[in-house]
This record gives sequence, C-alpha cells and structure tokens, in this order.
Amino acid sequence: MNPYNAPLAEMRFLLEKVFDAPKTWSELPAMAESVDMDTAAAILDEADKISRELIHPINRSGDEQGVRHQADKVITPDGYKAVYDQYAEGGWVGLCGDPEHGGMGMPKMLGVLVDEMAYSACNAFTLYGSLTAGAALAIHAHGTEELKQRYLPKMYSGEWSGAMDMTEPQAGSDLRGIRTKAVPNDNGSYNITGSKIFITGGDHDLTENVIHLVLAKLPNSHGISLFLVPKIKVNADESLGDANGVTVGSIEHKMGLKGSATCVMNYDGAEGYLIGRPNRGLVCMFTMMNYERLAIGIQGLGTSQAAYQMATDYAKDRVQGVAAGGSPTGATSDPILVHGDVRRMLLTVRTLTEAGRALSVYTGQQLDLAKFSDDAETKAKASRYVGLLTPVSKAFLSDRGLDAAIMAQQVFGGHGYIRETGIEQLVRDTRIAQIYEGTNGIQAIDFLGRKVTGDNLTALKEFIAEHVSNINQFEHVSTDDKIKVLSLFEQLLVIAADVNENKLTKPALINACAVDFLDAFGYSLYGYFWLAMTNAANDHVDSSFKQQKQKLSRFYFDKLLAKADYHLSQVAMGDAAIMDMDEALF
Amino acid sequence: MNPYNAPLAEMRFLLEKVFDAPKTWSELPAMAESVDMDTAAAILDEADKISRELIHPINRSGDEQGVRHQADKVITPDGYKAVYDQYAEGGWVGLCGDPEHGGMGMPKMLGVLVDEMAYSACNAFTLYGSLTAGAALAIHAHGTEELKQRYLPKMYSGEWSGAMDMTEPQAGSDLRGIRTKAVPNDNGSYNITGSKIFITGGDHDLTENVIHLVLAKLPNSHGISLFLVPKIKVNADESLGDANGVTVGSIEHKMGLKGSATCVMNYDGAEGYLIGRPNRGLVCMFTMMNYERLAIGIQGLGTSQAAYQMATDYAKDRVQGVAAGGSPTGATSDPILVHGDVRRMLLTVRTLTEAGRALSVYTGQQLDLAKFSDDAETKAKASRYVGLLTPVSKAFLSDRGLDAAIMAQQVFGGHGYIRETGIEQLVRDTRIAQIYEGTNGIQAIDFLGRKVTGDNLTALKEFIAEHVSNINQFEHVSTDDKIKVLSLFEQLLVIAADVNENKLTKPALINACAVDFLDAFGYSLYGYFWLAMTNAANDHVDSSFKQQKQKLSRFYFDKLLAKADYHLSQVAMGDAAIMDMDEALF
Repeated sequence: MNPYNAPLAEMRFLLEKVFDAPKTWSELPAMAESVDMDTAAAILDEADKISRELIHPINRSGDEQGVRHQADKVITPDGYKAVYDQYAEGGWVGLCGDPEHGGMGMPKMLGVLVDEMAYSACNAFTLYGSLTAGAALAIHAHGTEELKQRYLPKMYSGEWSGAMDMTEPQAGSDLRGIRTKAVPNDNGSYNITGSKIFITGGDHDLTENVIHLVLAKLPNSHGISLFLVPKIKVNADESLGDANGVTVGSIEHKMGLKGSATCVMNYDGAEGYLIGRPNRGLVCMFTMMNYERLAIGIQGLGTSQAAYQMATDYAKDRVQGVAAGGSPTGATSDPILVHGDVRRMLLTVRTLTEAGRALSVYTGQQLDLAKFSDDAETKAKASRYVGLLTPVSKAFLSDRGLDAAIMAQQVFGGHGYIRETGIEQLVRDTRIAQIYEGTNGIQAIDFLGRKVTGDNLTALKEFIAEHVSNINQFEHVSTDDKIKVLSLFEQLLVIAADVNENKLTKPALINACAVDFLDAFGYSLYGYFWLAMTNAANDHVDSSFKQQKQKLSRFYFDKLLAKADYHLSQVAMGDAAIMDMDEALF
Repeated sequence: MNPYNAPLAEMRFLLEKVFDAPKTWSELPAMAESVDMDTAAAILDEADKISRELIHPINRSGDEQGVRHQADKVITPDGYKAVYDQYAEGGWVGLCGDPEHGGMGMPKMLGVLVDEMAYSACNAFTLYGSLTAGAALAIHAHGTEELKQRYLPKMYSGEWSGAMDMTEPQAGSDLRGIRTKAVPNDNGSYNITGSKIFITGGDHDLTENVIHLVLAKLPNSHGISLFLVPKIKVNADESLGDANGVTVGSIEHKMGLKGSATCVMNYDGAEGYLIGRPNRGLVCMFTMMNYERLAIGIQGLGTSQAAYQMATDYAKDRVQGVAAGGSPTGATSDPILVHGDVRRMLLTVRTLTEAGRALSVYTGQQLDLAKFSDDAETKAKASRYVGLLTPVSKAFLSDRGLDAAIMAQQVFGGHGYIRETGIEQLVRDTRIAQIYEGTNGIQAIDFLGRKVTGDNLTALKEFIAEHVSNINQFEHVSTDDKIKVLSLFEQLLVIAADVNENKLTKPALINACAVDFLDAFGYSLYGYFWLAMTNAANDHVDSSFKQQKQKLSRFYFDKLLAKADYHLSQVAMGDAAIMDMDEALF
C-alpha cells in the first residue's frame, strides 16, 4: 500500500491565502494569544507525521483482522491500542477542546485539517477520537459544571472515549419511537434502561471508560432527554468506581470500517446524568451530531485525498498502451497517466477534493466565529452559516468521497478489485459516511426544508449575497467563470424561492427534490471555491502552484460545474413524477 | 435476505410486445421449429424457479465462506457443487449452444433473460457457466471440427467448464506485452508455457475438467495466437487422460464475488491446440470476449433487478416518519416508501433497470440475427449493430448496476451497511463488472474510437436512422418525449461527426471524451426504449401494466434523460482541460 503524505502546501494555502485564518484568529479573544500561522503550520506538520507514520500503518491490517467480540469484551485490531495511546498522549483528541478543562484550545479551522489527515490515514481508527471530541463538545455546551469537571479532562486527554447512543431497532431516522427509559433517582441521577444499536465505539479496549451520551424518555413523557451514562461509574475525584450496568450485546459485521467497533449496547438500570433540560435532549444532542456531521463529511474528504494519492501513484507507475498520438518519450509503452480517460478520472477526484477541503476549512472557520467571536452580529451570522453548511458538508463531502474512491479504484483496473492493493478498502470504508449521522437524504431535507426554506431563504440569501460580493472582487479569474457561478447562485435563489412558495400546496416537494437541490448548491459552491483558490494563488511564491490552480480550475469549470445545471433542472421538474405512482406499483 | 422473484411479466412483454421475438424466430431457419413464445415462457418460468430455489440460497453463504485454495485444489463454497450439478443437468450451460454438439439451440434473446435471472440470484455462481458458454462459442466459431466434437458436448452439458486466459501481470488492457509462449510439437499441438492472472473459474471443484482458452505467442512472433488448453488431456473418445501441466498458483482475495475462483494459472509445457489461424488469436478471442462483455453487462443488470427488489421490499416494510402532508392511512408512522427521496431512488433504479433489460434483449436479438439470419443484408446489419452495442451493453449496464446497488443500499439506511442484510454484497459483487472484460473506459474508447468514428459513423447513422423511423411510428407516446429523444439522437450524430473530424488533429480527444459519449448515448437510447415500451404497453391486457409504464416513462423523461444532455455537453467541451496539465503536476 502506498504511503500517505498530507497535502501540507494546500492546507497552508487555504488557511493563509484563501480564508485569511491569521486575521480571523487575531480577532478572536480565545485564539489571539494561542495560535498563529507558525503554530498552525507546526501542528499540521506534526499531524502529517503521526498520520503517515503512526495511523496509516494500521489501516489495512485493521481491516483484515477486524474488531472481535470475545467473552463480553470488544477487542480492537492489533496495533490499535498502542497507536491510540500515542495519539491520545499527543493531545490530538482534545486539540480543539476547551483549555479550562484540559483541551488544547485550537481553532476548528485547523482541526478540520488534522481530522482530514487522520481520516486519510485510517477511517476506522479516527472515529474513536472523533466521537470523543463530539461528546465532549456536547457536555461542554450543555452539561453542568460538575459534569464538565468530572468528565472533560479525561475525555480531552483521550483516557476516556465518547459515544453517541441514539438509534434503536425501531427508531433510526425517526427518533420519536425510542423506547429507552430514564427513571429519576432520589439523588438527582437517573436509571437508564434500554437497548441501542449501531453505536460506533460503543465498547472497545482502547480506553478504560466509555462515556455514552444516551437519548432516553422520562416516565410519562413523549419528549426525548439526553443523559451522560459512563460505562464505569466515576467518583468525585475522577477515579473509576463500579461497573454501571452498561454492556455490549454484540458487534455488527459490516461492509467495511472493520476496525471500528459498531456495538449493540444494553443499559440495565445504568446510572445516568441529565444533560441540558428534560425533554430537550435532541437540541443538546445536535451539538454533538452537528460536530459529527462535519466530521463525517471530512471522513469522505480524507478518503478522497487518500484515493487520489493512491491512484495517481499507480497511474504514474503502471505502464500500459501508448499515448494517443504517440509516446511523449518515444517509448513502446507509457504510464497510464498519459491516457485521457485516466486523467479525466484523476482530475475529477483532484478538483472535487481540493474544493471539498475549502468547504471543510470554511465551515471550520464559521464554527470558530460562531463559538468565539465577541461581536454579536458576526457570531449570529456565523451560526446561520454553520446551520446552512453542516448538512452540505456532511452529504456533499461524503458523496464525493465515495465517487472518488470508486474512480480511483477504476484507475487500478483489475488490481483495484484485489484486497492487497488497498483501494477497495477505501470504497468499503467510506460508503458508511453517506449513511450514518443521518443519511444524506436526511441531510438534504434538513438543508432545503429547514435551513433554506425554513427561514424563508434569509440565510441562503445572506450567504449568497456575501459570496457574490466576494466574486466581484476577484481580479485574477476569468470573467466567464465568474459569470457562470453568479448565474448559478441566482438560479439557486430562484428555485429555492419557488420551492418555498409551493411547499404548502405540494407537501412532498421538499423531500422529493432535496438531494438535487443540495447537489446543485454543492457543485455551485465548489465553483465559487475554485474561483477563490485561483484568485488567491495568483501571487503564490511558487509559480507552478499558481499554474496548477489555474489548470485545475479550468478542468472544474469545463467538466464538472455543469452538474449544477443538471441538478437544478431536476429540482425544477418538481415532484410530480416521483409521487404520482401508487404504492402497489412498486 | 429477501427471496428473488424474476420479473417474468416484464420479460415476456419485452420479448413478445416490444421486440416481437416470435416474428424474429419464425424467420430464422435455426429457430423456426424449436422456439415460440410458449416454449420461451416455459423456459423463463423454469429459470425463475431454479434461480429462486436453487441458486439464490447459496448467494450469501458463498460470500461468507468464499473460495479456498488448499493443497493445490480450489474448493468452492459449500453448496456450489450440488447446485452446479443440478444447473448443468438442467441444460442451462448449453442453453444457447449448437444442437449439433449437444446444445439446446435456444436464441440469445431468450438466453439474456435467463442469464439475468441467474446473475440476480448470485453473481459469483453464475460466472462459471457464463465463462463456459463463452469459451464454447469461441471454439464453435473458430475451432477445428475435431476440437468441436471433442470439447463442445461436455462443455454444453456442463461436465467441463471454460475459462478465458488473457491477462498477465504486465499485460492487462494492453495485450501486446504477453509473454506466454507456444512452441509447436510435431503432432500439430503446441507446448504452452507461462503464467496468467485474474482467471475467473481458472480452477475449481465444480467440474472434472477446465478448458482454457489461452492467448500466447508463437516463437519469433509478435502476433498473438489462441490455444485450447485443457486442465486434463482429453482422449479421442472424450475420456480424460493425463494431467496437462496446468496448475493454479494462487487465488485472489477480492472485494467481492467471493464464491468465484479468480486464479493465477501456470502453464508448464501444457499441451495446447491452435484455435483459428496463427497470430490471429485476438480476433478469435473476441468471439468469446464479446459474449462475455454482454454477459458482464447482464451481471450489472441482474444486480440492478435484485437491488430493486430488496430495497422495495424494505421500503414497504420499514416504518419511519410520516408522509409529508400527513399519513395516507392516518398512522403515526408510515412505510418509508411514502417519502419522496426514497421513491426517487427506487424509481431511478427501476427505470434504469427496465430500460437496461430492453437493451439486453435487443442486443440478444441482434446477436441472433447476426448468427442465424439467412438474409445476407439482415445478417450484416445485425453484425454492425452487435459491434456498436456490445461496448455499450457492457459498460452502461454495469455502471448502472453499481449505481443501482448503491442507491438500493442507501434505502436501507444503517441496515444497508450490515452484512446480514445482503445488499452490501451486491455493491461488492457488481463493482468488478465495471472493470473486467475490458474496463468501462476501454469499452467507451472501443465504442467512440472504433465502432462510431472508426467507420465514419456509418453504423451509428444507420442505427439512429432506423430508430428515428421507429419513433415516428409510435402512436401512444407523447410528442414532447419523442422530440426529446429525436433531438438527442441528432445531437449525438453532430457531436460524433465533430469528434471524427477532429480526431487526427486532436489525438487525445477520443480517449478523453469516450466515457461521456457512451453515457450520452446510453441515456438517449434508454429514452428510446422507454418510448418503445410505453408505446407497446398501450394495448396490454393488464391496464395497470400500461399505467405503470406510462408513469415510469414520465419519471425517466422528467428526471433522468437530462443526464444525456450533461454528458453531451462534456463531449462538446473536448479534451483541452484534460490534456493540458503537465504530468509533474499530478
């Protein structure tokens, strides 16, 4: 299997030149003292090193061996524990955690890049830390001071891990039907009883405790509340106490992600602690869920990058056929990189991945502004953008992740179907990213139904107006390309307004057209990011970097942006042909 | 796992109403006496039965257990041998074989439907028989009478299986580089020495002999010749003789298709018999290869159908959420089939599968006409159409097969990622169909470079003119839909002429744009088939059948046909953005 090398120059370029991270950080009181470009660059270098040297080597062996469930214990693949210990010791789990509770306080804008590297190196391993960071975020946002002090330090340090316990067999996309019960105790805690399925990192041997965030219902209530339920009870001094009636029922056998423990969890009167207000559990859980949704988008992005590297290395190495029009070197056989169709596939993966990274960093930036800005207006606007972009990041990045893995596999020909090559694992591992943390259909409905039409297009209009204004300031990109993106933005607003006007008389319209709307938005936004990157690369010290961005941008505009038009046309066709079919005819 | 039920009404409808098979058969001397719609319907019924009751039950267990390589033997999964024996005894391997040598002499038009059912039931199992039938076809077309008499009866009967041995480590898409040698013996046979990789069904325990068709080079020749090389030598009386120096080196560990033995084969002075003329091996092999290319398209089609059935059953059964606008039954939760996005996915799979089946049957019909017509003009035209449609069937059906499996998996949500559900196996199994027998990129280049522009558009013009004429005769479809397909056909001709004019000055153009051209053709042709099916369903005795076709056709025209426009626009953008990037920048 190929080594993994993080695209560090790309990452620094995005932070510094495209999104002006130093300016953002200098304006945020929590960041101004702790991070600048030098710090960020040093962290990126170190993350590259551990991703390449530590995490990537357990990727394939973990897939081959998988997680085992033996004698009530969940055992991760060989090497996972040793790697995890080093990873946790390096402070990576708490990279963006609150310094008051032991986190490193780094911006999410940087965190997304570190996450990308780790996911590129190994999808399955990286989930453990990602779930922990997400759970810590929810505890930080909604937990009592006591809970924060008792749990956050050991979560940020990676000594304990986190898990998100929502799904039950009868309650997946629709959580109304959950049956897990929470009965109040006299001491303010609750007795949690029930079963959860599909719990990523629900149990394992990497940490001595697992902190579950569990959705459950209070007696006589239809509302859903959120509880912190440790696998092992924690004493006031943070030492471990008794087992807490939290057991693993079984682990799932999956298509991929075999190093990640996906558990059925049983709660038998386990002691739990309310997070947030009673019956407001979904709101609190969404703090974690939104974090995970972005993380899962980044899983797709990391996969795309890994896929691109593997396929490109192969295409430079594999000799087969001669270039159309004659070998450039006069050889009797050329590397397959000379073939137009191979280039088409590689450039597709490359341009989608680079724009995807821009989306990821931009979303991280908005998260930082929403959390840390001391300007109320900036903070509120960033929150609206985070709301808008979270479902897009999750769905569009993970969909493109699968596309990338499949195209990269195709470059390998027959060798791509063989396990030893490693590329087929990427396809299997990344496939789940389109499904979990809310299927991409659910994301699209959240986007079009809640984030776009739910506030009468206010956030979308604001977002597009700002980016239109940016485009008008770009001086180093072609006017034709600008016009294309401006036109798409305008069409998106028109079609969104149309959906908004018709959503009451055509109640199925949003559900039926949401995926196409999200895709149209995604391809349009990537057009914007290609403009932004090309413009910012104009004065790059490395002239080949500038040239690269111009040529990649040309490819994106010539060959991929038109997908936005296709998806827009699909939204315009409405829902009639979809809904006008009796169920019996299926 | 869901049971498999063949779409028999659809299949009969295509044969009888859409493509008027009875008329075709009555006009072919080899068919007129042996097959009519009653015979065909009886064969379809029986094929449905064995696919459902015999083959499908070993699908998942075979995936779990896989093929093993122990002590120089390749052992298929439990149950394969017993099922294979019954399958062979039923005459299914020789269904379309020449009756003079023990085949059943059935038309390919029917054979494609039987193949589809078997692939729906189990991708991996079905390959064994498919390779045998393909090898028999090549022996029948190019072998000496002696070879035919000695090998065909036991291949048609399924007692011996066939394999296609082309690829070597250094020679995949580009076969010029093969190193396997064939040295003439005094008795007219050849000594074959070399190694082949990725040999499907190269060795296994289903049959007592495996008949390899091996590409090798004669001494001092750059040309490639084709040899029949049995695993065990065959005496003149068809009894088995000595082992023949054909051994299996190893078996591949693959993403899927785990019940299919993919072997490294070693030839150590094995006795082989020339098929066809020296140095003309590729031409002879293409008889087999073209057969397999259609078969692999049908693998994708069979997967699509199985995926549709599984996802639809799940969507009717799984209750989650309420229909937008309120539950149609007043329930608090509805089957997910009510949701627009779920319907969008199911209808996409359904409409592509039905049109794909039409493509498969139509291609089968052209194969029958090319082989059996006694009218020279009909025969020649059908041969041109077969040439045109073979790469399209292979690539477009297998690409849509993966799309279908992935969409169907998405309908299952989290359950779709779990092995027990069975849908993820379809994704893994069908992925290879886009790669083997020539990657889909190679198919597209064959289509645009050889079949379309290679004869200055003669075949394409003829094909489109005939179908334009058909469209003008359809009385029961909307004029708007007709106009859309007619316009696409016209645009295809224009763009193909443009590529043809520029192919010398832009040598990379065909390679770079071939996939988009094939996709544009595929979606346009499916538009044609939806017109043809809707038109033919107009007087169907079952009025719901007619209604179904009208509504499905509406969906296809509203929601999918526009993909043809997208791909056409990509061809029109040419190769500049693809080729204008230094190799160093990748």
